Amino acid sequence: MSLIVQKYGGTSVGSIDKIKAVAGRVIEYHEEGNQMVIVLSAMAGQTDGLIGLAGEVVDEPDPRELDVLISTGEQVSVALLAMAIKSMGHDACSLLGFQAAIYTDDSYGRARVHNIETERIKKELEKGRIVTVAGFQGLDDHGDITTLGRGGSDTTAVALAAALNADVCEIFTDVDGVYTTDPNICPKARKMDVISYDEMLEMASLGAKVLMIRSVEFAKKYNVPIHVRSTFSKERGTMVVAETKDMEKVLVSGVAYSKDEARITIRKVPDKPGIASRIFEPVFKARILVDMIIQNTSEDGLTDLTFTVAKSDFYKTMELLRGVAQEIGAEKVLGDENIAKVSIIGVGMRSHAGVAKKMFGALAKEGINITMISTSEIKISCIVEEKYTELAVRVLHEVFGLDDEE
Amino acid sequence: MSLIVQKYGGTSVGSIDKIKAVAGRVIEYHEEGNQMVIVLSAMAGQTDGLIGLAGEVVDEPDPRELDVLISTGEQVSVALLAMAIKSMGHDACSLLGFQAAIYTDDSYGRARVHNIETERIKKELEKGRIVTVAGFQGLDDHGDITTLGRGGSDTTAVALAAALNADVCEIFTDVDGVYTTDPNICPKARKMDVISYDEMLEMASLGAKVLMIRSVEFAKKYNVPIHVRSTFSKERGTMVVAETKDMEKVLVSGVAYSKDEARITIRKVPDKPGIASRIFEPVFKARILVDMIIQNTSEDGLTDLTFTVAKSDFYKTMELLRGVAQEIGAEKVLGDENIAKVSIIGVGMRSHAGVAKKMFGALAKEGINITMISTSEIKISCIVEEKYTELAVRVLHEVFGLDDEE
Repeated sequence: MSLIVQKYGGTSVGSIDKIKAVAGRVIEYHEEGNQMVIVLSAMAGQTDGLIGLAGEVVDEPDPRELDVLISTGEQVSVALLAMAIKSMGHDACSLLGFQAAIYTDDSYGRARVHNIETERIKKELEKGRIVTVAGFQGLDDHGDITTLGRGGSDTTAVALAAALNADVCEIFTDVDGVYTTDPNICPKARKMDVISYDEMLEMASLGAKVLMIRSVEFAKKYNVPIHVRSTFSKERGTMVVAETKDMEKVLVSGVAYSKDEARITIRKVPDKPGIASRIFEPVFKARILVDMIIQNTSEDGLTDLTFTVAKSDFYKTMELLRGVAQEIGAEKVLGDENIAKVSIIGVGMRSHAGVAKKMFGALAKEGINITMISTSEIKISCIVEEKYTELAVRVLHEVFGLDDEE
Repeated sequence: MSLIVQKYGGTSVGSIDKIKAVAGRVIEYHEEGNQMVIVLSAMAGQTDGLIGLAGEVVDEPDPRELDVLISTGEQVSVALLAMAIKSMGHDACSLLGFQAAIYTDDSYGRARVHNIETERIKKELEKGRIVTVAGFQGLDDHGDITTLGRGGSDTTAVALAAALNADVCEIFTDVDGVYTTDPNICPKARKMDVISYDEMLEMASLGAKVLMIRSVEFAKKYNVPIHVRSTFSKERGTMVVAETKDMEKVLVSGVAYSKDEARITIRKVPDKPGIASRIFEPVFKARILVDMIIQNTSEDGLTDLTFTVAKSDFYKTMELLRGVAQEIGAEKVLGDENIAKVSIIGVGMRSHAGVAKKMFGALAKEGINITMISTSEIKISCIVEEKYTELAVRVLHEVFGLDDEE
C-alpha cells in the first residue's frame, strides 16, 4: 500500500464533468489499495473572478481580506470532488487549510508553509477515506487565512507529501510532462523522462510554467519525488528528483525563455562607492524584483548601470529611477521593453567546458545580438531582442542536441 | 458607547455597490462611537448558485460537503465588506465561523448553535475594528464546517448579540419592519412598532418570512431585543421584544397565511390503540413534518384521520401512506394540494374570549368553508380552500381592526 499525494490544477477541475473524471481516476488508485490525498486548485477562472470582484470594491484590496476572499475558490473544488467521490460509492472528506493544519507565516498573498500537523489527515486516511485538501491556502499564527501565491497548490501538494512521508507526489496538469523547451514555439521539443530539482528550479524561474518554484524548493529540501503528468492521459510524465550521476552526461537538458522582461539603463552615473545601493534602494523598497545587473567599466569617473525587471514593473521602476538619476547627477534613464531572456540549463555544464562559447556562437550565426549575459553553475541566460526569442530557442534546442529526431 | 450587532441579508449585499452602501452605513454608526459587529448573508443568488453546482455533481449531495461548499457564499461577502470599510479609512476584520468560534452541533444543513467563544471578536473590537462575521456558518466538535439552514444568518446575529451582551441586534432586510399581514395581498397592512417574541414566533412559523424562527427562539431565550428594519431607509422598523402588559390590550396583532400546505386523509382506518403511531411512523422516519392532525370520531370501529404536510412533501407522504393503508386495512388515501392555512395571532387572546367565534363568523359570512382548525394560546389557524387565501386574510385583517385607516 502506497500513500500518494496528487494535485490537480484549475483546468483539470474546470467543470463538473472534469471533476467527475478526476473522481473516477482517484477511485481507480484507491481501489488498487493506495491511500489517497488529493490537493486541488480552484476551478479555472474562479480565482481571477474573485480578484475581479475585489477590484470592483477597491483598487488595492486589503491583503488579509483578499486571502479570505480568494481562498473560497479551492473550498468549492474540494467540496465538489468529495461529493463526486462519495456519489460513486467511496468514502471521502474535504479539508481546508485550517482543518488540514497547514500553518504558514502571515505574508498574505505569498505566505510560506512552515509546518503541517498531519493528525487529522492521517485519521481520515485510516478510516479508509480519500482526503481532498484545498490547495493554495493555510493558516497563520493569528488563526487567519493565508494564500501561497499563484501556483501555490503545487506547494501545498509537495509540502503535504513531505509531511506525510508520501511515496510520490503526482502533479496533474494540462501538459504531459516537462519539455526540453516550449513545444508551442519549438515543435521538436521532447518530453523529459527525468529532471533534477536544480534544473527544474532554473527551468521554472526562467519561464517554464509547469511547476511553482517554491514547490520545487520544498521537494528538494525534503527529497520528495514529483511526477509531473497529464490529467487527460495515463502516460508517464516527467519525474523531478534528486540529481544522479547519469544526469551529468547530458550537457544541456533544456532551453527556457521569458518575454516578461524589460531593461533599464542609467547613463553616466558618477562612479562612487555605494552608488549602486543608492540607486536600487527605492526599487527594493517598492518590492520590485531586479534580475540581471550589469555595471560597465567606468570612464572619466562615470559609469552606465543596466538591469532588468519584469515588464509589469517597468513603468514604476522608470519613474523611481528618473527621480534617483536627478538626485545623484546621472545623465539620463533609458528603457527598453522589447527584450527577452533565453537560457540553457543543464547540470552537465558543471563538468563540461565550452558550453557558453557554443551558445554565443549559435546565436551569432543567426545574427542575434546578445546585450546582457548572466550565468550560474547550471545555466546561462542571454538577453536578446524580443523578436528573436522563438528563433533563438529553436537554434539552441538544435545545437545542443535536444531536437526530437523521430 | 453601545455594542451593536447588525445583520444584512442577501439582497442588502447583492452587488458591489450595495456592499459599499452597507460599508458607509456601518461607518456612520462606528463614527458615533459604537462598537460594531456586522453579520452578513451571501450575496443574493450565491447560495442557490452553489447548491445548483452541487446538484450537477449528484442529486443528493453529501450534507457535510454541501456545507463546506455553500459556506463560501458568506465568506465572500464578509471579505468584500471588510475591504470596502478599510478602503474608506476605517479598520475592519472579517471572521468566519471557525474564527468567530461559533460552535454548533453536527446536523449539517440545519445545525444549532450551542456556544460562542467571544475572545477573538472582543479582541478585534478592542483594537477599534469593525468586525464582519460570516453568518449561517459554524464549526462542530469535529472541527468541521456546519450551516444553520435557510435564514441562518439571523440566528448568527442574535446568537452573537446574546453572547456579546450587545445592546441591540438590528436585522436589516428589504422590508421596513414586521407587518400586521402581507402587504402584497392586503394593501391596508400596517407596520407594527413592536411585537412580542411569542407573536413573532407564530408569525414566522405561519408563513411570514421576515425572521428565521430559530433566531426568534434564541432572542427570546436570551432576551435580546431585535430591531427589524430596512437597509434602504433610516426609518425605525419593528422591535421584537419580551411581552409587556400593554401588548395584551390588543386582541389580534397580525394575520398570517401559508399556501405551502397539503392535506392527506386516510379513510376508514380500523380504530385500534396505537393505530396513529403506526400510521405516522414511516412519515416521521422520512423526516416529514406533520402540522395539523385531526382524527374523526369513530363509527363502527372505523375512523378517518386527516393531517397536513408541506406541499413539497405531499407526493412522498402520499406514497408512504398508501403502503401503510394497505397494511392496516384502511379503505383509501385521499389528498388535496389546493388548501391554505390562514391564522390570527395575538397575546391578547389569552385574556379575551370570543376571538374564535368572531374569526369563524367572518369567514362564514364570505362563504369561506373551514375544513380544519388548530389553536394555541396565542393563535388560531384555519385550513381553507387555497383560492380563498387572499380574501380570508383581508377579511380577518379588517374584522380584527388591523386595517390602516390613514
